Amino acid sequence: MYQRFQELMNKIADLNYAAAVLMWDQETYMPIKGEKYRSQQIATLSGLSHDLFTSKEMLEMIEVLRSDESINSTQKLNVLETAKVLDKKKKLSTAFVIEMSKTVSNTFSSWQNAKQTNDTDSYLTQLEKLVLLKRQEADMLGFTNHPYDALIDEYEPGMTVAELDALFSEVKIKMTELLVKINKTPQVNDDCLRQHFDKEKQWKLGLELLKRMGYDFDAGRQDISSHPFTTSFSPQDVRVTTRIAENDIANMIWSCIHEGGHALYEQGLPEDQYGLPAAEAVSLGVHESQSRLWENNVGRQLPFWMANYPFLQKTFPEQLSKISLSDFYKAMNKVEPSLIRTESDEITYHFHIIIRYEIEKKLIEGSLKVKDVKQAWNSMYKDYMGIDIVDDRNGMLQDVHWSHGSFGYFPTYSLGSFYAAQYFAKACQDIPELESEIEKGNNQLLLDWLRKNIHTHGKRYSASELCNLITGENLSLDFFMKYANKKYGDIYGF
Amino acid sequence: MYQRFQELMNKIADLNYAAAVLMWDQETYMPIKGEKYRSQQIATLSGLSHDLFTSKEMLEMIEVLRSDESINSTQKLNVLETAKVLDKKKKLSTAFVIEMSKTVSNTFSSWQNAKQTNDTDSYLTQLEKLVLLKRQEADMLGFTNHPYDALIDEYEPGMTVAELDALFSEVKIKMTELLVKINKTPQVNDDCLRQHFDKEKQWKLGLELLKRMGYDFDAGRQDISSHPFTTSFSPQDVRVTTRIAENDIANMIWSCIHEGGHALYEQGLPEDQYGLPAAEAVSLGVHESQSRLWENNVGRQLPFWMANYPFLQKTFPEQLSKISLSDFYKAMNKVEPSLIRTESDEITYHFHIIIRYEIEKKLIEGSLKVKDVKQAWNSMYKDYMGIDIVDDRNGMLQDVHWSHGSFGYFPTYSLGSFYAAQYFAKACQDIPELESEIEKGNNQLLLDWLRKNIHTHGKRYSASELCNLITGENLSLDFFMKYANKKYGDIYGF
Repeated sequence: MYQRFQELMNKIADLNYAAAVLMWDQETYMPIKGEKYRSQQIATLSGLSHDLFTSKEMLEMIEVLRSDESINSTQKLNVLETAKVLDKKKKLSTAFVIEMSKTVSNTFSSWQNAKQTNDTDSYLTQLEKLVLLKRQEADMLGFTNHPYDALIDEYEPGMTVAELDALFSEVKIKMTELLVKINKTPQVNDDCLRQHFDKEKQWKLGLELLKRMGYDFDAGRQDISSHPFTTSFSPQDVRVTTRIAENDIANMIWSCIHEGGHALYEQGLPEDQYGLPAAEAVSLGVHESQSRLWENNVGRQLPFWMANYPFLQKTFPEQLSKISLSDFYKAMNKVEPSLIRTESDEITYHFHIIIRYEIEKKLIEGSLKVKDVKQAWNSMYKDYMGIDIVDDRNGMLQDVHWSHGSFGYFPTYSLGSFYAAQYFAKACQDIPELESEIEKGNNQLLLDWLRKNIHTHGKRYSASELCNLITGENLSLDFFMKYANKKYGDIYGF
Repeated sequence: MYQRFQELMNKIADLNYAAAVLMWDQETYMPIKGEKYRSQQIATLSGLSHDLFTSKEMLEMIEVLRSDESINSTQKLNVLETAKVLDKKKKLSTAFVIEMSKTVSNTFSSWQNAKQTNDTDSYLTQLEKLVLLKRQEADMLGFTNHPYDALIDEYEPGMTVAELDALFSEVKIKMTELLVKINKTPQVNDDCLRQHFDKEKQWKLGLELLKRMGYDFDAGRQDISSHPFTTSFSPQDVRVTTRIAENDIANMIWSCIHEGGHALYEQGLPEDQYGLPAAEAVSLGVHESQSRLWENNVGRQLPFWMANYPFLQKTFPEQLSKISLSDFYKAMNKVEPSLIRTESDEITYHFHIIIRYEIEKKLIEGSLKVKDVKQAWNSMYKDYMGIDIVDDRNGMLQDVHWSHGSFGYFPTYSLGSFYAAQYFAKACQDIPELESEIEKGNNQLLLDWLRKNIHTHGKRYSASELCNLITGENLSLDFFMKYANKKYGDIYGF
């Protein structure tokens, strides 16, 4: 029976990967009029995948297999993880799922409209309905301590409000301390990153960086899209996209390395478990740890650029030949409070996340009304970063997540950064020559370490188990703070 | 109930179009290792589409709808055409379909292998099994006069051996006469087409030609693949591919115009009938008539190049500024017997088709054994065109069709050319200024005529009905011969 289970899971994966191809095409190559039928086609694939996943056959097999003692540990993992998802689905009635899907669709349209017209009020009216449904969803899914826990579980299984509250209050204190120190010293100049950089040359540079990271171009490719993303069509076809701004090379370089980190994870998942939990990422937080680790702990550090800056200078001699590595390094690490999350630096980024976390947690527990979100947003931006919001488009309307109903998603971005620092510290400890090898252009030692310690396990361990297994302790902010204090102390001289 | 039928047909279309996206990606952008899971994913989509199409629900609906007098004529068409396909499918047992699918897969592998190793014998052993199954298929499908009729029907509904025999014997006589005349005169020099032409410039030229034909780039795009093809993902997303040879501009130009012709047909099919027969092409022959009409009756004629040659010369001044339009025109119309069908001229092309037609007809009726195909092939190439085959790769192994089990497909290529000539003659008659407008660069009159007379009808009429409706008579070789005799008489001076 396990074999039949696997067959059905493979079929479901085929449908999901096919939908991913259609979405990738939608973002990269599809002509404008193609939009008309594409969403319907994707919806059909998703619907069929859902039907198979929740079919009587699947439910019956899972009931039998979950108590089958003859299957091996990987098979057990696949059965139990699948059972977990199915148990959740069973808690939501079909009527509720349809209502949610309609409401999400309306809220998303309303958000798109608000971004154009600045009509925040209409959006909030719509968002209120969605928040009400998400609160109901939390109740239906069930929770022990906080309703928001039920929602986080979708993105970061096992994570709770209690843990996040503790973590983020520590973050607030320590990052504020660090920010105060940084703000007392003269600002870093990052003009060198904002010169004119030819798009074609940037494109080739991006490809070269991915290659140097160890990304397998025989099992993937890079294309252009308006928002960079990583997507898989199988463990042997993992694609990334990037965007190129002619007057800002930072945009391309670090988004390229970031997506490359996600893609290396996907390329490293166990291939023989196609379509099964054993071949899936642990959680969004752990996925983000892989992108952040490459983007920040490798890609915004000196060793990596000691290996790669000469190539960058050679590509853009006019722009960079007179810029020293040290100035380039400082520029890429400039810290400055700003309006937009996705453009923020490694430190203030977490204030953006905490603001969103606090708002959505309160919305779900019912202690903040949707109509008061704007005021809460604006006052926290002022409190935490001294920033005035003059326009909701650059304020509470900047992210798509809420309009998609993705409450509980934002914290995984911060978790990713903190896991990344902890993992990278451990890798450096395990491999004393790691950074000196990166300095020589050899990234393979790091990739091998990530493959062996993280990628190859798929969903075998929870994020917390994996962290303990690898580093011998729970997730701790210490690693990130140590890394950040050292880096910014050097750069800003304190 | 009709509405439910339409919903189900739309769902089936969504799956088929999704499979088409996956195949397009496979031929254009997919990284090499992606192959491993892609075929499986496409097979899953096709399988689900087949399951829905032959589902109990569909069969029961069709039974009711086929005698429902309340539906309108377009709805009736959709029901009856669907019923026709289902009736056919019902005649083939599941066991037979599986056996066929396996045998096709093995024969295709064997063909691929033979192309590499020249191991024709192993391929023929495999092909023998496939031919046996195709003969059984013909018996199961049923026929009145000739078993091959049952197979042709898949590609050109209503066409028969009787009609093709009559047509092709006329073709043989008249084309041979023409070829003899051509061969008596001095050969045309086509060296001007075989110079070095920059790939990037060729690419842009191809895009410009498509634009000038009226191809809607908001509802389609062009990419590169090793074999040019046209594919649809909806009536609003019809894509073409091309290939570019640096030392042969003819290759790109006429394959681009050819695919453009197919694509204009697809872009012109009635959009409100998404997924239904009313939005499908009449037959492969009529589809080919659209590509051939643009490729030959427009694209290898003087008026089109009077409008477009200046642009071509401007793109390649070094190569073409000293080549007169007249010499360019002669070069593109050079007639010369050759080994490869896809590279042959407008006249000898039909000998390639007749040879294949005669062989497959005999295989299906059982008067030729598979082991004797090679000898039959080689001797007919000698008889019809005076060509010696020295290597099966450039002989009977050149086409994929037989290894795919596509017996009955080849004749549609010739039918397309003859329909094209007949339709184009009628268009010129209906619009006296047609060619003088094309000469001025205005192709819209022609496109409008094709849209109104052919594209918009979908599958409403059979190929033969359509031909009578538009031209007032049956398909006749006279139009093609008149066109060819005039053209080659002018070029070769007889």
